[in-house]
Formats: sequence, C-alpha cells, structure tokens
Amino acid sequence: MNKVIFYEAFDEEASAIRKFLPGDLNAVFTWKTIQEQGDSSPPAELISVRTQSRVPKEWGKRIKGILTRSRGYDHLTAFRRETGLDIPCGFLDDYCGRAAAEQAVLMMMALLRKLKKQAGNFRAFSRDGITGAQCKGRRAFVAGVGHIGAEIVDITKGLRMEVKGFDIEHKIKGLVYVPLAEGIAWADVVFCALPLTEATRGMIGYEALKQGSPGKIFVNVARGEISPAGELKRLLEEGAVGGIGLDVFPEESALAHRLRAGTESSNQEVKTVLELAERDEALFTPHNAFNTQEALEQKAALSAQAVKQFLARGTFPLAVPSL
Amino acid sequence: MNKVIFYEAFDEEASAIRKFLPGDLNAVFTWKTIQEQGDSSPPAELISVRTQSRVPKEWGKRIKGILTRSRGYDHLTAFRRETGLDIPCGFLDDYCGRAAAEQAVLMMMALLRKLKKQAGNFRAFSRDGITGAQCKGRRAFVAGVGHIGAEIVDITKGLRMEVKGFDIEHKIKGLVYVPLAEGIAWADVVFCALPLTEATRGMIGYEALKQGSPGKIFVNVARGEISPAGELKRLLEEGAVGGIGLDVFPEESALAHRLRAGTESSNQEVKTVLELAERDEALFTPHNAFNTQEALEQKAALSAQAVKQFLARGTFPLAVPSL
Repeated sequence: MNKVIFYEAFDEEASAIRKFLPGDLNAVFTWKTIQEQGDSSPPAELISVRTQSRVPKEWGKRIKGILTRSRGYDHLTAFRRETGLDIPCGFLDDYCGRAAAEQAVLMMMALLRKLKKQAGNFRAFSRDGITGAQCKGRRAFVAGVGHIGAEIVDITKGLRMEVKGFDIEHKIKGLVYVPLAEGIAWADVVFCALPLTEATRGMIGYEALKQGSPGKIFVNVARGEISPAGELKRLLEEGAVGGIGLDVFPEESALAHRLRAGTESSNQEVKTVLELAERDEALFTPHNAFNTQEALEQKAALSAQAVKQFLARGTFPLAVPSL
Repeated sequence: MNKVIFYEAFDEEASAIRKFLPGDLNAVFTWKTIQEQGDSSPPAELISVRTQSRVPKEWGKRIKGILTRSRGYDHLTAFRRETGLDIPCGFLDDYCGRAAAEQAVLMMMALLRKLKKQAGNFRAFSRDGITGAQCKGRRAFVAGVGHIGAEIVDITKGLRMEVKGFDIEHKIKGLVYVPLAEGIAWADVVFCALPLTEATRGMIGYEALKQGSPGKIFVNVARGEISPAGELKRLLEEGAVGGIGLDVFPEESALAHRLRAGTESSNQEVKTVLELAERDEALFTPHNAFNTQEALEQKAALSAQAVKQFLARGTFPLAVPSL
C-alpha cells in the first residue's frame, strides 16, 4: 500500500510538494478529486485532499489519517461526524497572509494615486484629473487583525502611515485598537480583513462607511458578504467613499459564473458589481490576493511537513479538534 | 508698484500659494507667461516664474529679484549671463521626492503582482497566468540615492525588502552602496532615480540590465534618456527583464506631441514606447509621479516662504549660485 495519496494536486502544486518530500517516499499524486478518480478503496494509508473531495464513509476504518491542504476543515469535521470515528485529521497553518496583505496595500496605493486613470491618461499623455494622495502620514484602519490584518498593519506602518486596528483579540503590541465605528470615522483608508461570521455579515456597509471624512478608500480582501455592493455603490455616489478595491465579492459564485459563462444574471448584487467595475474609482481582481509564488511554495512546504510528521509520529502539526 | 507677481500660476497653484501669504501683501497672479501676458515693463519688484517665461533682458535693472518655482534654474543662470547682472535669484527645494518614490514603489508592486493582467482577468473571473511575487524578502536596487532615491530606500525597507544603492555620494547611514553593475546583477527590482547627465545618458540600457537573474523588474521615474526604449524592448523579449514601469520616456516631448495631437511619428523610440505600452508587462504613466496633493501643497508653501523671506531680508532660502 502507498504511504500517501494527494488528490486535487495540479502539476504545479505536485512538483512543489515533491521537492519537500524524501525521494524514496511512496507518494502518489492526481489532479482529480476522489470522486473524479473513482477509487473504490483507499489507495494509501494517508489521504490528502483540498476542499472538493468527499472522503467516502466506508474508507473510515481503512485509513490512518486525512490532511486537508487548506486552512478550512469543515469537510473533515463533517466526515468525522458522519462516520462517528475520531480519525486524526490535519489542516494547514496560514500560508498567504503576507501575499494577501501586500495585494491589499497595492490596491490602496493604486486607488490613492488614481492608477487606473493615470495609466489611461498615458494614451493622451495628459495630467487632467490625476492628482493623487500620498500614503505617508495618512490614516489606515485595519478591521480584523488576524493573519492578513497583522501583515497589513506591518506594511502600512512601513509606509509611515498612522495605523489603528479593530479586533476581538488585541494581540499586537503597540497597535491602537478601537471600536469599528471609531476607526472608520478616523480613517483615510479602511481595510477589511475580517472573517465572515453571522456578526460580520454586512458589517461594513452604508451605515458604517458613511461616517468620517469624505472620499475615503475602502479595500476588501476578506469576504464579499461583509460589504454589500449596492451599499458601496451608494457610498461612492454620495462621495463618502472615493475609491473601492475589491478582491472578494458578495454573491461571488454567481458573479464568477456570470463572468466565466458570459450569460446574463438576474442577481442584483452581481449587476451592481459589474457596473462598479467600469468606474475609475474601482479596482477589482478575481479573488487572487493569496496568489504568489511564495504562498504556493509555503503551502507545499507545510503540506509536506504535515505528511512527514504524520508518517513518523502519527500526529499533525495542526490537528482538527475532536468533536 | 506691486510687491510680487506670479507668472505661470494656474488657479489651483495660485490659491494654494495665497493661503501661505499675508492677506495684505500686494501680490498679483496670472496663469500666463511673461511673453503671453505681454508686459513691457516689470509689474512688481519681485518676479516669480516657472520654466516657460523668459525674463526680458531690459527688466534687469528694474527688478530686485527672481524666484523660479522649480528645482531647475538653468533659465535664471542664462538670464544672469545675458544681462551681466548678479540679481538675486531663488529656486525651490525638493517638494515631491516622497510622491515620486511612492509612485515608483506602486509601479514595482503592480508589476510584481501582474496587476494589469489581474484586473483584466476580473472580466472572466479567471486566475490563469496571474501568480505574482511578493515584495518581502526580495532585492531592491536603487540607482541614484538623491531626493527621490532616498525615499525609495525608506519605503522598500518598510516593505521588508533587502535594499542596496548606487550613488556618487554615500549619504544614508546603514545603506549598502555598490557599483551599478554589481547592484543590477544582485537585484530583483531595479529603480532608476538618477539625474540626467552626460555620464548617465543611456547608462541603464541593454548591457547593464541583461546581467543577473532573469525576469527582473525595472522602474524609471527619473529621466527617460537613461534607458533607451529599443533596448528595454529587447530585454523584455529576451526575458532578462520581466516588467517595466515607466513614468518618463526617451524623446518624451515627441512622444507627448504624438499622443496629444494623435498624429503619426517617425521617431523610432516613440514607436517602440507605444508598442511596449500595449503589453501586460509594461505599466506607463504620463510623467505624473510628482503629482500629489501633498507635493502641490508643499510647493506652494515653499514658494510663499521664499517670497516672504526675500521681501523681508532680500535673500532667498535657496539662492542660485553666482556666475
């Protein structure tokens, strides 16, 4: 029997992981999910998946562990609940906090300097309407100071901005934490790096962002549901917000389907996002903030490390808590 | 007689300067040059210009001083040489180093993260070909560590990059200075912030940039003549350079004329720039790196300060050296 099988591992990820594994380890890779592969019995004692595979219930007694190559592990909790077995399950630590934070800061700088219009103005070599604003001395407010937010704090301080944060936990020494409304009222730039929970859904919408100085920049690299598109549009039209950088979107799967298939959508949030996308004050990217060479490399290293530790000691560096 | 006349001062600059002057000062503003205004005799004892006016030779014995609202003062040196008079002439200190540096760093980040293609990919919500690279840990080489270059050093260190510099003077403590070729061979990103002199013309071209690791980023916010467009194109085609950010261009006035008038140009450098502009690996802006609210404000403050000092004491904060 093989030692480990990696499902859902495309060529790039597979070769990155291989680099970090011992050459003699009996490891198998496939880009398919378990279902696409059609395996009727487990081909290895350790199964590694991402989020698309469903581990068959009947494999429960024939495997020794499951590693998901993601931070989320809801699917493994569900598997345990379904089987009633307490099989060791592992997940990965943060591997893309810096990548996402650098993208968030890039979006802020691009919006402060009206980069979309600047680059457009090159075509007429004109300077009309492209006087920008500097980062240095401006006020950055980071809502959600977790893996991504902490890195945004680090970078914006490096740019010599004034920085305040909002979070349930106050982990960073030297960072001033304030309530959400106070932070927004104070800020020139608002970053959203909050997790999506029932409490944060819709939290940074019209009522929140209309406070404080007009023309502020809003950047969201967390989850689109925290800021409804219709409310962002109204904020832009009324001048409370002067620039919007989004890497994530409300109704993101409907939006992605609409854009990939090219079909019409009756979803009002999707329509509003597409309207906003045309504006010079909006900078939208396709949920790509995590996507750097370093993050992909780090993910592969963490995956290989988890596999090696499990095969040696039967435990994962980060274990899914027992039910 | 008026105390001071500001030529070449458009509304925005005029009102910014007025804010910093005493309300009772007899100051006159016009957006026209001296020649456009058609003044046959000097309308004030202190004349302030930018770089487009020629101060008439015959005004030499009737004015007390000239302030140019620019860092360059070649035109005032020429006036003194022409008249043989040693009239006090003033110029402005750096007012846009930080603005230009922030734009240079923005261009670097946008190129490292393939922002042009990322934003384009939003239209299909696709992630093909947009894996980027992080700033943190990468190597930034700053050629020319003057007003702009020193700020680029500050910002790239803030982004936790490794930084080295090249300059005739070694002014910044803690910065490692290396020869140009050594710095380029070492770097992931090369910034050009050199002054244009006979020595630097063409200095960062094909031979210089083909050294070192492939795919490096090149950003120029200094003067286009330092990097011929044809050589940059060849570097991109051969893979030595993977991204080009330009705010300045060789043959810039011919390029600007071509783009503003929309006429054809037979200038090969202009044609090459326009070809490059279409590529995803190129990010071009219309000589706008200086252009922030802060820089415009600072320029107005420095202009008003120079005028006030001259009217009180007959000297400028920064005086053009005597012939």
